[in-house]
Amino acid sequence: MPIYNPPLRDMHFVLHELLNVSEELKLMPRHADVDTDTINAVLEEGGKFASEVLFPINLSGDQEGCTHDKTSHAVSPPNGFKEAYAQYVEGGWPRMAADPAYGGQGLPIVVNHCLYEMLNSANQAWTMYPGLSHAAYECIRAHGTEEQQSTFLPKLTSGEWTGTMCLTEPQCGTDLGLLRTKAEPQTDGTYKLTGQKIFISAGEHDMAANILHLVLARLPDAPEGSKGISLFAVSKFHVKADGSLGERNPIFCNAIEHKMGINGSATCQMMLDGATGTLVGQPHKGLAAMFVMMNAARLGVGNQSVGLTEVAYQNAVAYAKDRIQMRSLSGPKMPSQPADNIIVHPDVRKMLLTARAYAEGGRALGIYIALLIDKELSSDDEDKRKEAADHVALLTPIVKAFLTDNAWLATSHCMQVYGGHGYIKEWGMEQYVRDARINMIYEGTNTIQSLDLLGRKVLGDNGAKLKKFGQLIAAFVEEEGTNEAMQEFINPLADLGDKVTKLTTELGMKAFGNADEVGGAAVDYLRVAGHLVFAYLWARMAKVALAQQGSGDPFYAAKLHTARFYFAKLLPETAGLIRTARSGVAPLMAMEEAMF
Amino acid sequence: MPIYNPPLRDMHFVLHELLNVSEELKLMPRHADVDTDTINAVLEEGGKFASEVLFPINLSGDQEGCTHDKTSHAVSPPNGFKEAYAQYVEGGWPRMAADPAYGGQGLPIVVNHCLYEMLNSANQAWTMYPGLSHAAYECIRAHGTEEQQSTFLPKLTSGEWTGTMCLTEPQCGTDLGLLRTKAEPQTDGTYKLTGQKIFISAGEHDMAANILHLVLARLPDAPEGSKGISLFAVSKFHVKADGSLGERNPIFCNAIEHKMGINGSATCQMMLDGATGTLVGQPHKGLAAMFVMMNAARLGVGNQSVGLTEVAYQNAVAYAKDRIQMRSLSGPKMPSQPADNIIVHPDVRKMLLTARAYAEGGRALGIYIALLIDKELSSDDEDKRKEAADHVALLTPIVKAFLTDNAWLATSHCMQVYGGHGYIKEWGMEQYVRDARINMIYEGTNTIQSLDLLGRKVLGDNGAKLKKFGQLIAAFVEEEGTNEAMQEFINPLADLGDKVTKLTTELGMKAFGNADEVGGAAVDYLRVAGHLVFAYLWARMAKVALAQQGSGDPFYAAKLHTARFYFAKLLPETAGLIRTARSGVAPLMAMEEAMF
Repeated sequence: MPIYNPPLRDMHFVLHELLNVSEELKLMPRHADVDTDTINAVLEEGGKFASEVLFPINLSGDQEGCTHDKTSHAVSPPNGFKEAYAQYVEGGWPRMAADPAYGGQGLPIVVNHCLYEMLNSANQAWTMYPGLSHAAYECIRAHGTEEQQSTFLPKLTSGEWTGTMCLTEPQCGTDLGLLRTKAEPQTDGTYKLTGQKIFISAGEHDMAANILHLVLARLPDAPEGSKGISLFAVSKFHVKADGSLGERNPIFCNAIEHKMGINGSATCQMMLDGATGTLVGQPHKGLAAMFVMMNAARLGVGNQSVGLTEVAYQNAVAYAKDRIQMRSLSGPKMPSQPADNIIVHPDVRKMLLTARAYAEGGRALGIYIALLIDKELSSDDEDKRKEAADHVALLTPIVKAFLTDNAWLATSHCMQVYGGHGYIKEWGMEQYVRDARINMIYEGTNTIQSLDLLGRKVLGDNGAKLKKFGQLIAAFVEEEGTNEAMQEFINPLADLGDKVTKLTTELGMKAFGNADEVGGAAVDYLRVAGHLVFAYLWARMAKVALAQQGSGDPFYAAKLHTARFYFAKLLPETAGLIRTARSGVAPLMAMEEAMF
Repeated sequence: MPIYNPPLRDMHFVLHELLNVSEELKLMPRHADVDTDTINAVLEEGGKFASEVLFPINLSGDQEGCTHDKTSHAVSPPNGFKEAYAQYVEGGWPRMAADPAYGGQGLPIVVNHCLYEMLNSANQAWTMYPGLSHAAYECIRAHGTEEQQSTFLPKLTSGEWTGTMCLTEPQCGTDLGLLRTKAEPQTDGTYKLTGQKIFISAGEHDMAANILHLVLARLPDAPEGSKGISLFAVSKFHVKADGSLGERNPIFCNAIEHKMGINGSATCQMMLDGATGTLVGQPHKGLAAMFVMMNAARLGVGNQSVGLTEVAYQNAVAYAKDRIQMRSLSGPKMPSQPADNIIVHPDVRKMLLTARAYAEGGRALGIYIALLIDKELSSDDEDKRKEAADHVALLTPIVKAFLTDNAWLATSHCMQVYGGHGYIKEWGMEQYVRDARINMIYEGTNTIQSLDLLGRKVLGDNGAKLKKFGQLIAAFVEEEGTNEAMQEFINPLADLGDKVTKLTTELGMKAFGNADEVGGAAVDYLRVAGHLVFAYLWARMAKVALAQQGSGDPFYAAKLHTARFYFAKLLPETAGLIRTARSGVAPLMAMEEAMF
């Protein structure tokens, strides 16, 4: 059976030693009194909840899946999911990052982010149920009317109700401009919504008393395309004036999908049959309002992948230490045994260290961006808010696509460490691979992320956001330029920074001539940019570890080894990617459609 | 529902235009009269069987899986599998590549190989049942006694019986030296075998009247380790003197595995409870005898991956042409539609072309090595046989590991083209990804393949086999050196050839100092070597296509576009791989075990 130990030590390292989170929070009036002890205590409890309550129902949840009753439209998640959710609510976890005005604890996003990494490690499928509630909360908080806020926010905050995002329809996923669900205004100011939505995570279940669906639909006078889409709040049950629940609103689950993974998460086909909803934000401006949720969700998906990478790594390490097979090529390491444990073999270590470097690097990046979001939301300095917002905008597609691609590689490596046993369900490793695969698809495919990065975030403002982030790297390179011990990290970082600058300029020039050049290079470009961000963070982590080398704590030695591994074995991938990015779009477009 | 069209045109291209198979066969007395028309007619019928009989039960077979009866030890494959096997036998397909002396048709391996690609595309899980029968046939033919040959070969040839390889035990997979199954000699010259085997594909089923298990076990006087392993033939039912089947031999299936994929294939835990067997080959030389099967099986696994890549590609292309979503960045391509079909997007094309280049390149390599095996087995010139054997030895680990890694990448890309629908079982795409994953593991993990390539095949004979293959490349580079139109292919091929030579020398020197250097570089090295072989074959295919450019046949234009894509977008991966291979083993070994 798989194991999971919350990686609290590494979280502490990133939060306190790398990023000095509590110092940063002191500069945000709203979070000034959130100190190190508070953060650590919360994470320790969160880790217990994840490992003791959620993790034991992960493998069984995958095997059982969800069930759908065609008559009642009810959906039952796997055994234990409902009870775990009740404990989650009782423990006050949904309240953590919510506004005290609605019953929240007002802790910063960065702490919630760490909690969620552990929930995802323990049980990604289960975490899909509460996962979108906070995003729905953020959306209503930013765009809802006072009545919507007072009706929905306390219930989302307590976790009594959960939330969904209802975007996709059979004929439109990426291209929301094609959506058809209709919203007819009623005389009482509400709307009747009619249409079909698919791929709605946690669209129906019995874990919470009510579900708040945030639904994209078209008003009768809507312009065509993406500028004619409005956002509506549709409650599973009508909410009476006193806040209690009334009749069922006709938004029903018609079927659930049978999927490659996250089988414990109900992926619902939802039918809106004249369901009553209220408008959120301005008419026809629904996509903008929904983007608050979508950006949060994209970071959440990156975090899911860090969680899966961590748990897959932990299990693969345990197996590699335990499994006896073949002798080391350089001579027996366990002479009293009939063979050595497989961790002596260089390629087994390479697979393990790949997962480790991606888990720890992804954790550092995730926490880094979560803290930036806290700055964006809570700093009292407008310039800092603006700067943080720019960094968040730039990094969001990287977090989503780079971390999810990495998890696909890493979980597959961890499974490979098990040999044939990795392919067998009972060992639990293949589930991590299957669960990880969805992360490259949902909340905008990784191709869409790459177009967002290169087309919109980088070339869209003539490289201004990239330059700002590059200044952080340049400052660090400058600062460490005379530190001999740091040269092994600083040199490749500075070199890659130069290459990214040149590549960006080159692609920008090409894109002037042919807009398709962006699409031809974007995926390679995102991966190169991801490595640049990782190289920056790994170099900074190496600096902290170097400073602690004398402490004798093996944690720092391991951090340094992992940093060196990253620079030696993973970063060089950029050499090939830069070549393919530069080779242009012609080799992709030359073939006529009929020849495929 | 998925589609599958046998890629006969591309097979004809490789067989007849690239490799001149019928000319080559004329030089082999045994196959001298196998002409182009015969080959094409056989493949056309084989394609029909694959697409019309096997393909319709692929998705259902995955969903149903196999069932095991604990009381009777019986295993039932999914619905339709047994009937399809009966048709397979009736159609004479198992006889194709077998010796006429045993009822075979005596066709060359290269034709059987093409048939199997199609069977694998249509239904990899089903193809596991007959898949090992031919390998068992080869093993008994090479190492069996006259009695074993006369008893087993006609039945394996007709397909009335199927075969298995029983190697793995719970405590040993890669390291067969650890195996424990015992064989006690009996006074009648037979042996009683006792032990447990796991991961036995097609170990039990009701599709054939009998199953011949080839079982590795230890004799009582066996030396420890891999030099004390013998091979035994163990028949599911005792065979009477008249050839009819008698009592059940106590080799039973205790359980079947629940796996990530190939769910229609029964993966059995086999218990030998004093089962009667006869020795195959010499005592304690079982591994050498089994290697005949294992090498054939490794090539078969590479071929499975080509099959999966092909069928995934075909479906992804159909979806990409059909699915309407977003506008091309360079302006509408389907102005009368609300959006363009997604094949206009450069990255969708990149994913499709990756699969196409890996499918067609893999097919070329697979057919190339199959023809080499025919030369090895059937040439009347001893030097040619020896040369072919050397090429086969060198290429076998590349076919196994490079093609299976490629299929994992390619099937995942094809699934990604479908967006969210790719993750849903009913579309069939995620099954290809799950099925493809086992190919990187079984018949020797891809890490083992890489050690076999770099350690044994390349450095083990001081690069002699590699040099021989390199001479083929050098001759082609020389030959085309003045052909202007070929420079775009010849230059990167020659460049990569030089780099591989240098890298090999460097790694050889390092390995003198530290044997672990082989293990640290082997996986990267294999992938670079795989690209060198692909670059050679793609350049040769481009040459054929260039010569036919005037024909107006779009097949050749597509072949050239795909070749250019390969050189522009896939080959450059080697730039990063060579760097990581050169960065040595230290970054892998520096971390102490306890720090993981």
